[in-house]
Amino acid sequence: MLAGRGRGVIDVGIVGGTGYTAAELVRLLAGHPGVRLRVVTARAEAGTAVAEVFPHLRGRVDLVFSPPTPEVLAECRVVFFATPNGTAMTLVPALLESGVRVVDLSADFRLRDPAAFERWYGMPHPCPDLLPLAVYGLPEQNREAIREARLIANPGCYPTAVLLGLIPLVESGSVRADGLIADCKSGVSGAGRKAALGSLMAEASDSLRAYGVPGHRHLPEIVQALQEHAAGRIELVFVPHLAPMIRGIHATLYAEMIDAATDLQGLCAERYRGEPFVDVMPPGAHPETRSVRGSNVCRIAVHRVGGGRRVVVLSVIDNLVKGAAGQAIQNMNLMLGLEETLGLTQIALLP
Amino acid sequence: MLAGRGRGVIDVGIVGGTGYTAAELVRLLAGHPGVRLRVVTARAEAGTAVAEVFPHLRGRVDLVFSPPTPEVLAECRVVFFATPNGTAMTLVPALLESGVRVVDLSADFRLRDPAAFERWYGMPHPCPDLLPLAVYGLPEQNREAIREARLIANPGCYPTAVLLGLIPLVESGSVRADGLIADCKSGVSGAGRKAALGSLMAEASDSLRAYGVPGHRHLPEIVQALQEHAAGRIELVFVPHLAPMIRGIHATLYAEMIDAATDLQGLCAERYRGEPFVDVMPPGAHPETRSVRGSNVCRIAVHRVGGGRRVVVLSVIDNLVKGAAGQAIQNMNLMLGLEETLGLTQIALLP
Amino acid sequence: MLAGRGRGVIDVGIVGGTGYTAAELVRLLAGHPGVRLRVVTARAEAGTAVAEVFPHLRGRVDLVFSPPTPEVLAECRVVFFATPNGTAMTLVPALLESGVRVVDLSADFRLRDPAAFERWYGMPHPCPDLLPLAVYGLPEQNREAIREARLIANPGCYPTAVLLGLIPLVESGSVRADGLIADCKSGVSGAGRKAALGSLMAEASDSLRAYGVPGHRHLPEIVQALQEHAAGRIELVFVPHLAPMIRGIHATLYAEMIDAATDLQGLCAERYRGEPFVDVMPPGAHPETRSVRGSNVCRIAVHRVGGGRRVVVLSVIDNLVKGAAGQAIQNMNLMLGLEETLGLTQIALLP
Amino acid sequence: MLAGRGRGVIDVGIVGGTGYTAAELVRLLAGHPGVRLRVVTARAEAGTAVAEVFPHLRGRVDLVFSPPTPEVLAECRVVFFATPNGTAMTLVPALLESGVRVVDLSADFRLRDPAAFERWYGMPHPCPDLLPLAVYGLPEQNREAIREARLIANPGCYPTAVLLGLIPLVESGSVRADGLIADCKSGVSGAGRKAALGSLMAEASDSLRAYGVPGHRHLPEIVQALQEHAAGRIELVFVPHLAPMIRGIHATLYAEMIDAATDLQGLCAERYRGEPFVDVMPPGAHPETRSVRGSNVCRIAVHRVGGGRRVVVLSVIDNLVKGAAGQAIQNMNLMLGLEETLGLTQIALLP
Repeated sequence: MLAGRGRGVIDVGIVGGTGYTAAELVRLLAGHPGVRLRVVTARAEAGTAVAEVFPHLRGRVDLVFSPPTPEVLAECRVVFFATPNGTAMTLVPALLESGVRVVDLSADFRLRDPAAFERWYGMPHPCPDLLPLAVYGLPEQNREAIREARLIANPGCYPTAVLLGLIPLVESGSVRADGLIADCKSGVSGAGRKAALGSLMAEASDSLRAYGVPGHRHLPEIVQALQEHAAGRIELVFVPHLAPMIRGIHATLYAEMIDAATDLQGLCAERYRGEPFVDVMPPGAHPETRSVRGSNVCRIAVHRVGGGRRVVVLSVIDNLVKGAAGQAIQNMNLMLGLEETLGLTQIALLP
Repeated sequence: MLAGRGRGVIDVGIVGGTGYTAAELVRLLAGHPGVRLRVVTARAEAGTAVAEVFPHLRGRVDLVFSPPTPEVLAECRVVFFATPNGTAMTLVPALLESGVRVVDLSADFRLRDPAAFERWYGMPHPCPDLLPLAVYGLPEQNREAIREARLIANPGCYPTAVLLGLIPLVESGSVRADGLIADCKSGVSGAGRKAALGSLMAEASDSLRAYGVPGHRHLPEIVQALQEHAAGRIELVFVPHLAPMIRGIHATLYAEMIDAATDLQGLCAERYRGEPFVDVMPPGAHPETRSVRGSNVCRIAVHRVGGGRRVVVLSVIDNLVKGAAGQAIQNMNLMLGLEETLGLTQIALLP
Repeated sequence: MLAGRGRGVIDVGIVGGTGYTAAELVRLLAGHPGVRLRVVTARAEAGTAVAEVFPHLRGRVDLVFSPPTPEVLAECRVVFFATPNGTAMTLVPALLESGVRVVDLSADFRLRDPAAFERWYGMPHPCPDLLPLAVYGLPEQNREAIREARLIANPGCYPTAVLLGLIPLVESGSVRADGLIADCKSGVSGAGRKAALGSLMAEASDSLRAYGVPGHRHLPEIVQALQEHAAGRIELVFVPHLAPMIRGIHATLYAEMIDAATDLQGLCAERYRGEPFVDVMPPGAHPETRSVRGSNVCRIAVHRVGGGRRVVVLSVIDNLVKGAAGQAIQNMNLMLGLEETLGLTQIALLP
Repeated sequence: MLAGRGRGVIDVGIVGGTGYTAAELVRLLAGHPGVRLRVVTARAEAGTAVAEVFPHLRGRVDLVFSPPTPEVLAECRVVFFATPNGTAMTLVPALLESGVRVVDLSADFRLRDPAAFERWYGMPHPCPDLLPLAVYGLPEQNREAIREARLIANPGCYPTAVLLGLIPLVESGSVRADGLIADCKSGVSGAGRKAALGSLMAEASDSLRAYGVPGHRHLPEIVQALQEHAAGRIELVFVPHLAPMIRGIHATLYAEMIDAATDLQGLCAERYRGEPFVDVMPPGAHPETRSVRGSNVCRIAVHRVGGGRRVVVLSVIDNLVKGAAGQAIQNMNLMLGLEETLGLTQIALLP
């Protein structure tokens, strides 16, 4: 069943091992039957046991954080970058030259246009020549390209939830491209494992607020991906909210139908037929974020409201799994010719 | 300062005393310097101390739940109904005849059209002749009528948050009336103090979901109130969500401007100048629900996005205070000729 | 690797399928490589898809709730009872006669003394003759007896956390048997999937309280299990608390050493050496409940305080896994001669 | 009613205005009818509006943070220190000389023994001569001394909850002084408004853990206060826990009775008769932390367990109110000869 088994174990590595997406990568890779997690790097924590920083891994993961040495990484077949924006782009070129394939969970290779990158991320892109090489790692959109890719730009968490909800509507031309709204609610783990005042439990729990209304970095990423499928110009209003929960994204998507007779429920079901990780729920459903907690699943429900022309699509994911680490492993599976669902069949934890 | 002081104490009563809005009425009235809470009724709990059901009132409230006897209620100047829908409308007619003034926190008198009431609430209205008498108790909209009213239909929690955010835009004709969206997030206390599976902490915490997308009872209430101010026909998509917090509503409101040159920030600031309980925040702000927790305040922020024609208004309230009990007391103050803010100046509890 | 594989698939069943422990049994059994979940019964929901009640199982579990028909259950090798107290004891005798082996997650067979059962559970025991047959299913205490058992009394959640923490101290005679205190904090899922006012999120979140101080049903169960190992008479003060979290038990255990020179850390480490699901943490550690969320692990830390004679043991489990469904499957594995850890190696979900 | 009214307004000030206890001081003082909050200092935020840092104060507090200038503080009758440990002791001597009275909410003046201070806080005490002057500000213990005090050491949050629960038992000699246990659970606001990894919502919510088991700074403070009342030597085991809630301390206190015939319920009720802020609940009660959320109340319940000799006392407070800012204002009221409850009669916010 395992591609490469005859050729021995497949080694993989993680750069930037102390954040939440890295912890999820480690959790999922520790139980992955097709690869071996060989190295997890963390500059400041080099020498410390991974399970000392993440006690839930005690007894299951005995790796020690390594310094980010290129030599060890070069011996991996796939390397994941779970680093802050701006780091992968300095290390990826050399790794690619060593023949290593890269899945970058940061934003470094998501935007095709280096000028757009510079505008939204506040730094020039050091290797714009690599941008055309990068494949946007949304398997439901780019599965075949991902199989052949050497460099994957793993989608952001909001983009994953929004795109999976809107793609069927946009690529079928069923809705006005210039009238899209994405009202998104995220759990606090989306802010990362960083000591920031606004992420304190005493600040963020038992409360809800929008943020980044004037402009959020995930907006150009969503628009770029949608535009590929759209006839007209995509105009999207994107409002993220911080919700008092640990994991989960709930995207509430609003669009206006062009032909009120279109069967959107059927269209979505058809678009995702056979997709292992997209669950189009029956009419009338309201997916809960907890129904995907810890799992690589996106659940979608489609509603017609307001006399019929208005569509509301509800889309939920776990931001750390389908929105980050799970999708990264799904991409890795595709790149390695493994079964796409390998190591990713965990059922959500509920309650 | 107190109207009526010379004429002695002003007695008020509550019908239906065991829910969350009743508990808030008791909390706020216990500290209200202008009235005396004389009676709190609860059929099943009659004879039990109020502070036994609500231990936070121990030492501060020594009332005992009464049976809902008309005679005692008739001795009150104002009676609040904190009953489930369908109850107030059976008791209010007699009370009004006794000269008592009524603030009904249920939905019984909110919809002017008895047919609409029957359609949305699944029961015929027994006293449709009283509907024209009822004043919709949103002081920022109907202050003068409230002063004279004998019967107040206290607004729902979602309608309060949505209306305060949209009224300036709609009544000024600044936005398209037929392109409104209200994406609302509510804490779980909005579901009331009822033992329901979906409201269990093990079900509702650490998760978020939409509900009632096909149709929610607060939709016709919002549309009715907005329509009064609108030139064109109001079309509103309203999607409520259950957020994992106790109190708070966050309404994220989307609209399309008619003239991109309109100064919406100034317009909102002007509309609410002098309003004691509406805080129009400075440009760029993102109000948090916790910033109004336990207080009668609505905070609003106005954002222009998407190149300028799209507006996003953020509006937050405490669903149990400005969205229920606080607003009811604000209405009472107006009806009794008291200072509008009397007993309502609590600062929000943060953190 | 699988016992019984040669003889075909091993079928198992669940009686009482709509509670949280049942949902966890389904989640864990759906991924268990050694058995097949054949039937889940639920009288009121018979005919409904399991995944309709528990949407996190959509796409992974296609069973439909069955009525509790003895014939189907009799075809299972092992049947789990996830029923309220008082149900298993009416159905177990017939099942045992059919040769089915039973793991009862309720309290029906936990207390050896039928009089104690009647006193604590308020009903006479209908089959006291089966009580001597029942093995208390704490593998770390009774592994060999469990292998041979036909009827397992699966331990309560509090008893599991308390016993794993105290057994090394008590059976080694290191602490005074009559001076034990267990201060326990549980998440709300411990109260079950029942619509009860006190379990509402609006009641239980952002708060903490003790309950059952005058007497809790888990007390005699803990004392009975400890007494087996103790020289003197066990006297235990047990105070459970409801903590505002979904899952998890944190037991803080206080004892007084007999000889201050005893190496308790070493003693605990030695006692649990080789145990697959007990993690004795290094000196100075403070285990978090989330470090075992969703996993079958118990983490323990041992502290000496107050000049040396006082011991504080911290013990954490997931009440629904090691405290219920996970331990039940661990027992099943032992009964069936399977690898003890089969299907139970999920890593905790953190954050 | 107001002492000093005839002599004009009483000005008070706060040093260190950006933490949670400062925010609570501001909230409570803004509604206090007997004093005027004149100055709030914050070195780094000087010039910023207080309501910009704490948006819940918008519209109610128009102060701007000042630099900590001694001249302005010297014009206040009372100055509160809400500073980190180590700051008050450098500024207090000069203020006292100016005739200002000081309530220090930090730990600087709590321990009488400068050597103990140095051992627990890791710094020498710069003004040990002031220590004998400082009165420990627990009004239920030291009311008369507080009235005359120039310098109040405001008790820590844990000590307040523990002392109010244990004082009746210890000072009456009803329990063994050397067998006390305090198992305490605190909300996360107790850790202060500091960006620390362990206080992130993604780290601290939906989980519970003990901390500081080997030794916590509140232990010597509790022992010192209890020792004053005890015949024998106090031995106390103190284990604090971080609970996933914002506010609240629940102290579960264990003791062993000397004479099993003592009526502890009566003794506690008698001890606190007339106390405005201590509520001895009826037998069998289990106080919830939320029942005091935002209020200055301590609720206590007394239980006899384990055959009668063991006592369990449950004591709950809001750590930021009775455990900090509320108690500080209670002390201020006493010092100024005002009504002790002035400005402190807020009812808890529930739900």
